[in-house]
Amino acid sequence: MPSVFSASLAPAGPFSEAERAAVYRAIFTRRDVRSQFSPRPVDEALLTRLLTAAHHAPSVGFMQPWDFVVIRDAAVKARVQAAFRAANAEAAAMFPDTRRPLYDALKLEGIIEAPVNLCITCDRNRGGPVVLGRTHAPEMDLFSTVCAVQNLWLAARAEGVGIGWVSIFREGALREILSLPEGVVPVAYLCLGHVEALHDQPELQARGWRDRLALETLIHRDGWGQGAG
Amino acid sequence: MPSVFSASLAPAGPFSEAERAAVYRAIFTRRDVRSQFSPRPVDEALLTRLLTAAHHAPSVGFMQPWDFVVIRDAAVKARVQAAFRAANAEAAAMFPDTRRPLYDALKLEGIIEAPVNLCITCDRNRGGPVVLGRTHAPEMDLFSTVCAVQNLWLAARAEGVGIGWVSIFREGALREILSLPEGVVPVAYLCLGHVEALHDQPELQARGWRDRLALETLIHRDGWGQGAG
Repeated sequence: MPSVFSASLAPAGPFSEAERAAVYRAIFTRRDVRSQFSPRPVDEALLTRLLTAAHHAPSVGFMQPWDFVVIRDAAVKARVQAAFRAANAEAAAMFPDTRRPLYDALKLEGIIEAPVNLCITCDRNRGGPVVLGRTHAPEMDLFSTVCAVQNLWLAARAEGVGIGWVSIFREGALREILSLPEGVVPVAYLCLGHVEALHDQPELQARGWRDRLALETLIHRDGWGQGAG
Repeated sequence: MPSVFSASLAPAGPFSEAERAAVYRAIFTRRDVRSQFSPRPVDEALLTRLLTAAHHAPSVGFMQPWDFVVIRDAAVKARVQAAFRAANAEAAAMFPDTRRPLYDALKLEGIIEAPVNLCITCDRNRGGPVVLGRTHAPEMDLFSTVCAVQNLWLAARAEGVGIGWVSIFREGALREILSLPEGVVPVAYLCLGHVEALHDQPELQARGWRDRLALETLIHRDGWGQGAG
């Protein structure tokens, strides 16, 4: 159907076999990194490529609710690590005794070693009070921001940069350290750095914390529990 | 440092230039699709590749909280579309008169035309009451599920499959139609189908709804509002 908009359509068939393999390679070899960061600096041009990938994530109503707080300052990192440690002491105490020794042995962050830390935030008021697609699901702005995180994570894998997502902070800790304004919430606190090796499976699986589930047990047909597999 | 785990490390430097270009091509040419779906069926092998990509998303504590409800049944799709229409009538009424004609002219879903619909859910109780990394941020399971959505979206682009995320439903509508059990929440309702062309920019931008923000205005240094750009 001809329309005034048809000029903006571009061909979009499948990628070549080699291109498809590259996309799947990024997806399957991406890891959450805590220990493999090289001290080699991450240059600005590379960081800009990663942030550009994040900025091209889908967003509800094209809201683009994200901001990027890039942290290289050692003093800021030290405050963030202290906030992690306070929360992680609380977290450790929540696990049953049988799990506690393994939990305590896990390294869960690389805040100091990673040359760059990055807090990706969500401005919950961006785009005004009514946002297309968010009228019935106010959390869609947070979800859009997570899509930006995953775009960045996969681009980073292709660039040889590892990323670790640190989520153990008391509420308000990052807001205070990074001076986030009212209405802007931290969605992801990421550690970034070049890596030369990564675990060949998720580290929590390698260390015996939890196994990968069988995909076929997670598939349902036309409704929950119908014709799984 | 030698460790019993070092055997599981694999080399992980940057991809080749061609591989990097393929990953960025997926990121930059991915679109939210409402109108370009081909009626050509999506075969099971292809769908399984996409679900496998989703299943390899990062998840908090390796929780893997997602399930995949694959919908091909026309009657189920019709009920979902009716739920969308009821909610969208409410949504349209929320926009000011100046935006209303454009809002009403936008096609916001391809539920019926897309050969496959897919609801990706989050089981908020998977992995028990205490999940590593989720102790202080209970929403991390939802965010993990969104990472699965974005993995699938990028893999789909590489496969020549378009995806549209429909988020305009009254709370509880999808739960009821898909018989989701207590504790399992719908995170994303997606329409999937082969596409031969896509918009060369986000459709909402092409149609004059909203422009892309300048990336440099979204970057902060070591704290909010410091040395942006």
